[in-house]
Amino acid sequence: MKIDETHDPARTSWVESANGHPEFPLQNLPFGVFAPAGKPPRIGVAIGDRILDLSALPDMPAEVNAPTLNALLGSPARAELRKRVFALLANAEHRASVEPHLHDAKDCVVHLPAAIGDYTDFYVGIHHAMNVGKLFRPDQPLMPNYKHVPIGYHGRASSVRASGQPVVRPNGQRKAPDDTAPSFGPCRRLDYELEMGIWIGRGNTLGQPIPIAEADAHVAGLCLLNDWSARDVQAWEYQPLGPFLAKSFHTTISPWVVTAEALAPFHVAQAARPEGDPRPLDYLWSEADQARGAYAIELTVTLRTRKMREAGLPGEVVARSTARHMYWTVAQIVTHHASNGCDLRSGDLLGTGTLSTPDASGLGSLLELTNGGKAAITLANGETRTFLEDGDEVILGGTARADGHVAIGFGACTAVVLPSPV
Amino acid sequence: MKIDETHDPARTSWVESANGHPEFPLQNLPFGVFAPAGKPPRIGVAIGDRILDLSALPDMPAEVNAPTLNALLGSPARAELRKRVFALLANAEHRASVEPHLHDAKDCVVHLPAAIGDYTDFYVGIHHAMNVGKLFRPDQPLMPNYKHVPIGYHGRASSVRASGQPVVRPNGQRKAPDDTAPSFGPCRRLDYELEMGIWIGRGNTLGQPIPIAEADAHVAGLCLLNDWSARDVQAWEYQPLGPFLAKSFHTTISPWVVTAEALAPFHVAQAARPEGDPRPLDYLWSEADQARGAYAIELTVTLRTRKMREAGLPGEVVARSTARHMYWTVAQIVTHHASNGCDLRSGDLLGTGTLSTPDASGLGSLLELTNGGKAAITLANGETRTFLEDGDEVILGGTARADGHVAIGFGACTAVVLPSPV
Repeated sequence: MKIDETHDPARTSWVESANGHPEFPLQNLPFGVFAPAGKPPRIGVAIGDRILDLSALPDMPAEVNAPTLNALLGSPARAELRKRVFALLANAEHRASVEPHLHDAKDCVVHLPAAIGDYTDFYVGIHHAMNVGKLFRPDQPLMPNYKHVPIGYHGRASSVRASGQPVVRPNGQRKAPDDTAPSFGPCRRLDYELEMGIWIGRGNTLGQPIPIAEADAHVAGLCLLNDWSARDVQAWEYQPLGPFLAKSFHTTISPWVVTAEALAPFHVAQAARPEGDPRPLDYLWSEADQARGAYAIELTVTLRTRKMREAGLPGEVVARSTARHMYWTVAQIVTHHASNGCDLRSGDLLGTGTLSTPDASGLGSLLELTNGGKAAITLANGETRTFLEDGDEVILGGTARADGHVAIGFGACTAVVLPSPV
Repeated sequence: MKIDETHDPARTSWVESANGHPEFPLQNLPFGVFAPAGKPPRIGVAIGDRILDLSALPDMPAEVNAPTLNALLGSPARAELRKRVFALLANAEHRASVEPHLHDAKDCVVHLPAAIGDYTDFYVGIHHAMNVGKLFRPDQPLMPNYKHVPIGYHGRASSVRASGQPVVRPNGQRKAPDDTAPSFGPCRRLDYELEMGIWIGRGNTLGQPIPIAEADAHVAGLCLLNDWSARDVQAWEYQPLGPFLAKSFHTTISPWVVTAEALAPFHVAQAARPEGDPRPLDYLWSEADQARGAYAIELTVTLRTRKMREAGLPGEVVARSTARHMYWTVAQIVTHHASNGCDLRSGDLLGTGTLSTPDASGLGSLLELTNGGKAAITLANGETRTFLEDGDEVILGGTARADGHVAIGFGACTAVVLPSPV
């Protein structure tokens, strides 16, 4: 990915709120789908605390005239369009013609950016895999395949929702080890998972794999992803075919596609694979990908209880992690997914899996933070939690940061827990 | 489901090929999407060896003017439309106006009937679960949850294809127990699975489960489904999150939606749950569903090798089973799937899992037929198989049969195996 003028830290926008904005400065320009009050959804770009309506601008590529980003994500026009939007928002000469098409973000509804054809969730956060493995298999936390296969499973596309939509606590079957029989009712061990999402850009044809050297060209961008999890349901249902209803009730994403082009300055070397680990098989191996296939993206989980919200408090950061803890790179994930000929389509979403730190500072789920629910955490206001309570809000945050570059963010990825239906 | 005149075995059609047709007599009338030579896809109904173009008829419901069945499957107009088509094709007075809109099926391409939002595969064939379980866990073939939870996993929607499209042998990672390291290459244990598919009609809203008493009203119809499986890939990749690339390279379905209305006469009592088994939890329990929630559908697997095809032979039936071997009914599957609030959408596809018999007459996969690849089967022409070879064709067949009713079928569900890409 070439570093170009759109990454120049000296450039500013005539949209004043963009300059110094922690998430959407001029150097970001993420694509999304938004609806101004009372109007239908259309494609836009976030800039500061405003949204530019691309569908209202002249001479846009045809892919912009759509209620979803699917076509634009898969189009070669995407990168060029971002450069054009940069020029429109950087150069004051365009202000008069462009400003009428800016909307205040606070007055808009931001929708899912794409019709998600398939959602796949991976498991490449190695410290999460270790932490969870230890809870169940102290002798062998990692399965023998972990360092050879980017482990993943098919997820549920229908229940992915944009940030802000409440998550309803699911009912489900659960059976604790000392229960004599299973029962059905509201989940008692509701949890979140700190992940990133990967948007597929250009797809591939069924039966035609994606070589590792071409994988990055199939990635449109990234988002934040909260893989809500019902731990008690998961423990009872998952043998032998994996997680199902424990995950399919809701997945929350940040709805702006932070593009591969915007993220180009934040690539770093893959460092999550320790010396001495097995070398990946040839189809997953690329020196160039090892040299720059990871991302310097800082991640946080903030828990905001009902009491905190009622007291006007912003919530408490309970985890600080980074995307560097991916054992497999984005390119390796994409190549592996298509290695059997499976066809990826523009607008498909891949989750990375929970990105926890090796130490206690950035554990990306309550399962890990509370040692499987055995040790409650105490929050600064005195409240305690093992798992989520109704009214709790979980807020994921992400910032890409690199020396000499303007940091960019992902926008909100938040939802409040509502009670189960009776 | 009321038994009405559309099930009257005495009625015949002026489309002569329909009368006595083993699959598409007047009493069936499945919906599908087809393209006459050189024309775009549209919605039609199979009748004998012809296809009626519904989009060309006057006064049709709006849902018919679409390139997919998604809207029609979810519409209350569906059942009434089938009755109208019945009248048009039964009564000779309509022949002159309708006949111009009939196409010879052999000259048409039949497409996937719907844009499949999500595909879920269940595991409700209890004899298959027992047979496979015995291979891996002789002491405990069934997991403790099996008789409480309708086990399923999210599948891959993008790679579902209509009958007739060849399946490319996947590459993948595999590691036999005595291999020192995994390797990557063409699947060596390629298999099929005999399943039925369930088409979701009316959907539900996220967070709002579907009570068991209402589940049947969310089912639009059934099809045949071949869950192609790469057994060597599956064995190495599936821990701990379940099947992934072992399944996602291709799924073949019969492309006609045989409607719930057409299948009404073929409901039978649920008999796959032996006396003494645990009673399902209340949310899955309905006396009415137990009394009529199963289907009298006979199923076959035919294997046609390249040699058979070159000799003009039709292939050899290697399994005869029935849909009665479902441990959970279709209603229980639907209710369980939505019990956590997961939203099902019109055009979603659910697989039942492999429907094997308790004895050797109807084993729905080569894994079972060959005892895990240890005992090759010998075909009538002297060829042997443990798993599928390139050039093999697998043909699934299904016939709903009941005393006093005209039997109806599902149409072709077939595909030929092509070699892996190099």
